[in-house]
Amino acid sequence: MTATKDKLNLTMLCDFYELTMGNGYFQYGLKDRITYFDVFFRNVPDNGGFAIAAGLEQVIEYIQDLHFSEEDVAYLRSRQLFSEEFLDYLRNFRFTGDIWAVPEGTPVFPREPLLTVRAPAIQAQLIETYLLLAINHQSLIATKANRVVRAAEGRTVLEFGSRRAQGADGAILGARAAYIGGCNGTACTISDQLYGVHAGGTMAHAWVQMFDSQYEAFRAYCEAYPNNAILLVDTYNTLKSGIPDAIRAFNDVLRPRGITECGIRLDSGDMAYLTRKARKMLDEAGWQSCKISVSNSLDEYLIQDLLRQGAQIDLFGVGERLITARSEPVFGGVYKLAAVEDEAGNIIPKIKISENVGKITNPHFKKLYRLYGNDTGKAIADYLCVHDETVDDTKNLRIFDPEATWKTKDVYNFTARELQVPIFRGGRLVYEKPSLDQIRTYCLAQVDTLWDEVKRFDNPHTYYVDLSQKLWDIKYGLLKQNS
Amino acid sequence: MTATKDKLNLTMLCDFYELTMGNGYFQYGLKDRITYFDVFFRNVPDNGGFAIAAGLEQVIEYIQDLHFSEEDVAYLRSRQLFSEEFLDYLRNFRFTGDIWAVPEGTPVFPREPLLTVRAPAIQAQLIETYLLLAINHQSLIATKANRVVRAAEGRTVLEFGSRRAQGADGAILGARAAYIGGCNGTACTISDQLYGVHAGGTMAHAWVQMFDSQYEAFRAYCEAYPNNAILLVDTYNTLKSGIPDAIRAFNDVLRPRGITECGIRLDSGDMAYLTRKARKMLDEAGWQSCKISVSNSLDEYLIQDLLRQGAQIDLFGVGERLITARSEPVFGGVYKLAAVEDEAGNIIPKIKISENVGKITNPHFKKLYRLYGNDTGKAIADYLCVHDETVDDTKNLRIFDPEATWKTKDVYNFTARELQVPIFRGGRLVYEKPSLDQIRTYCLAQVDTLWDEVKRFDNPHTYYVDLSQKLWDIKYGLLKQNS
Repeated sequence: MTATKDKLNLTMLCDFYELTMGNGYFQYGLKDRITYFDVFFRNVPDNGGFAIAAGLEQVIEYIQDLHFSEEDVAYLRSRQLFSEEFLDYLRNFRFTGDIWAVPEGTPVFPREPLLTVRAPAIQAQLIETYLLLAINHQSLIATKANRVVRAAEGRTVLEFGSRRAQGADGAILGARAAYIGGCNGTACTISDQLYGVHAGGTMAHAWVQMFDSQYEAFRAYCEAYPNNAILLVDTYNTLKSGIPDAIRAFNDVLRPRGITECGIRLDSGDMAYLTRKARKMLDEAGWQSCKISVSNSLDEYLIQDLLRQGAQIDLFGVGERLITARSEPVFGGVYKLAAVEDEAGNIIPKIKISENVGKITNPHFKKLYRLYGNDTGKAIADYLCVHDETVDDTKNLRIFDPEATWKTKDVYNFTARELQVPIFRGGRLVYEKPSLDQIRTYCLAQVDTLWDEVKRFDNPHTYYVDLSQKLWDIKYGLLKQNS
Repeated sequence: MTATKDKLNLTMLCDFYELTMGNGYFQYGLKDRITYFDVFFRNVPDNGGFAIAAGLEQVIEYIQDLHFSEEDVAYLRSRQLFSEEFLDYLRNFRFTGDIWAVPEGTPVFPREPLLTVRAPAIQAQLIETYLLLAINHQSLIATKANRVVRAAEGRTVLEFGSRRAQGADGAILGARAAYIGGCNGTACTISDQLYGVHAGGTMAHAWVQMFDSQYEAFRAYCEAYPNNAILLVDTYNTLKSGIPDAIRAFNDVLRPRGITECGIRLDSGDMAYLTRKARKMLDEAGWQSCKISVSNSLDEYLIQDLLRQGAQIDLFGVGERLITARSEPVFGGVYKLAAVEDEAGNIIPKIKISENVGKITNPHFKKLYRLYGNDTGKAIADYLCVHDETVDDTKNLRIFDPEATWKTKDVYNFTARELQVPIFRGGRLVYEKPSLDQIRTYCLAQVDTLWDEVKRFDNPHTYYVDLSQKLWDIKYGLLKQNS
């Protein structure tokens, strides 16, 4: 991509059918018909209890930059499928619609709209691919990162996976998403430069191999970076020479300068055994404040298992299994038509039927509330209603399971918060973008509002996402009518 | 990334340790020490018998564009770790070394060098992350695509996964890699525009929902695109209304114009059952030349299974499971020091020891040959030797298993081909980049040189990658010396 990176127009990162449909809408006078599309997902990756929404900032940048260059129009003309009138229309194409979305870092649940678009059909259709790509990718990584961070129980977690990422954006924005999910930093330099995700790192095995001996390599590194001396101790033999050489270098270089902060890193071997041994050797040598880092194909399960075995680890570097979300590398967000407006501006709800009940969409232009208990501060349920409904949280609210409607629950003493906020109005950005640190802080605080039962890795409790009576009636009316 | 895309400098897509090591090499006068690094991998994804090398074109573009801007230098200075002399050196940084690589599209095997760098230490180290990222990502997708294409047994396979890709490059270059591996095209418009991967697509469910009836939606589409009418038939009920409405639209719009080429697409339901029924309904209506496309969470195993059940499918659209290589989303290429040169220019082989025998590296500056049988045209084995050795294929060659050295094989009547070709010499590009279509054709022809036993999905035969006696002696000498 390097050579073309400077002229890459992401507007062209669309599925070709969005253009053939757009040309068709144009031809049939449907291009300005107002449509409502929802982005939602059906399953939480790794059978988790919730996901973390991310990617909105990239959606915003994309929407603001939507345009077709003359080269783009020329390419499309060469395909001999599009009318000249349509191509001419694309020359002045920009986004004029409305977008609402849940802020980045929000814990989210299946079947609720993470983002809603209200726009002329041709515009709403064209942005499908990139919206999904941006939200799917970063929500996937933020969700995985949050799992890893929770497994580490307060220890430092760094994202180390650039070299195994699926493309440059996979690395760069993956590090951003991992930070939102709770990682403390990354090894990816450009993610620090562009997004302020703190980047760090010290040495690879090659550093050790470049010197005549491991001790010389360690000593040289301590002298070059006395305040940041983290030595990789597994190039030859961790216990026989790696840790002894590191201790000798610390003693020779750091101790005379009164420096006590330092570290070792292990990238191979039995981490539970080696880190316990390492801790003992370091402590006996008077290096109690030397931190131990590990980094070998880790994920949330291995981290839990290491800690259960009493491994002595201060920092986890998590690579390929985080940056690709290896155990479940797809976040299945979809983009579905929820309503259209007729000429008079009436909103006509639309539904997508499926033989698979879980694939049936929630129709209509909706509102999404989260209900928090006032006594506990915990999230009780999410509540989807029609756009013109309002939840009055000064009164009790009866909610019911949308699939087992006889299961009801009275919610009282709660605060209702609308989860979607306005992002674009009439094509104009109306959202003040939070900083990445604000997003991360918000994310960790919101995850704290979830009960432990929703957060556990195995068989988490299914959080309620209920429909209002009005929305339920509309949905089941449409189902009957269409089947 | 949109906003920053125009100023994205991939040189900064490096692991931070490459910069701290670089600064250290600079400080210790090691920056110009000539080093040799190999890119290789240890395991074929999905337990396959071989992988497909890809990503070299992006490596070339990256190497040609290597540089640090003033903004990059300012960022690095702000980290307060690097000397001013080093920062000043980075201002004029460019790649001056040599690179050899196997061409894109080559079937490759574990532990053989896909790419070799000979360069001053500081340069060789800095390019590690992006080289691995580019090769890992595209080799992953090309390898997966080749599996999917082989499963489809000659039917058309299109890449459909942009919306689930891990970032923009994941989609764009993923489509490029999928094409190399044998896909016939993509849904991703920009991959066509930039790389000439043919992009196609017709309609989503929203098209059908935008019209008052499914028939009207189909009729309108046929009228707009009479020569490209592929109708999505599963919005409401595939057999009850989808296919009947499609047949009616074909009859009403295409038949009067004498058009017989058209298609239907199914995106849900029981594909084996529905496509057999659909084929029958279309044939009985006189639409024998109507093609049937399917596209619902497919991969090589589901495709094999559908064909085994007699599904009537002409075209597979393969999405998330291809673009993320879902079953194994990591290609584990690594970058390891193989040798350094002393002041006199002598090449000193280096080895990385590991308790895990499979992780021990092949030391030295090497040559990689593939031996083809003259009678069969099939690949017999790969042969790694020291750079100054030559295989004389006019004579018999005795090869042996590098782990079970008593297992030998005499190779005769063969042609030896060097797999790595020069890419850069002294920083100058010396390689004529093939077109994407040439790469794809080469790939498919080279896969044909592999025996079926290497190509099967379950328990493939392990292809031989043997070492020359000289290389073996050097390797085991170093092992003894270092353990």
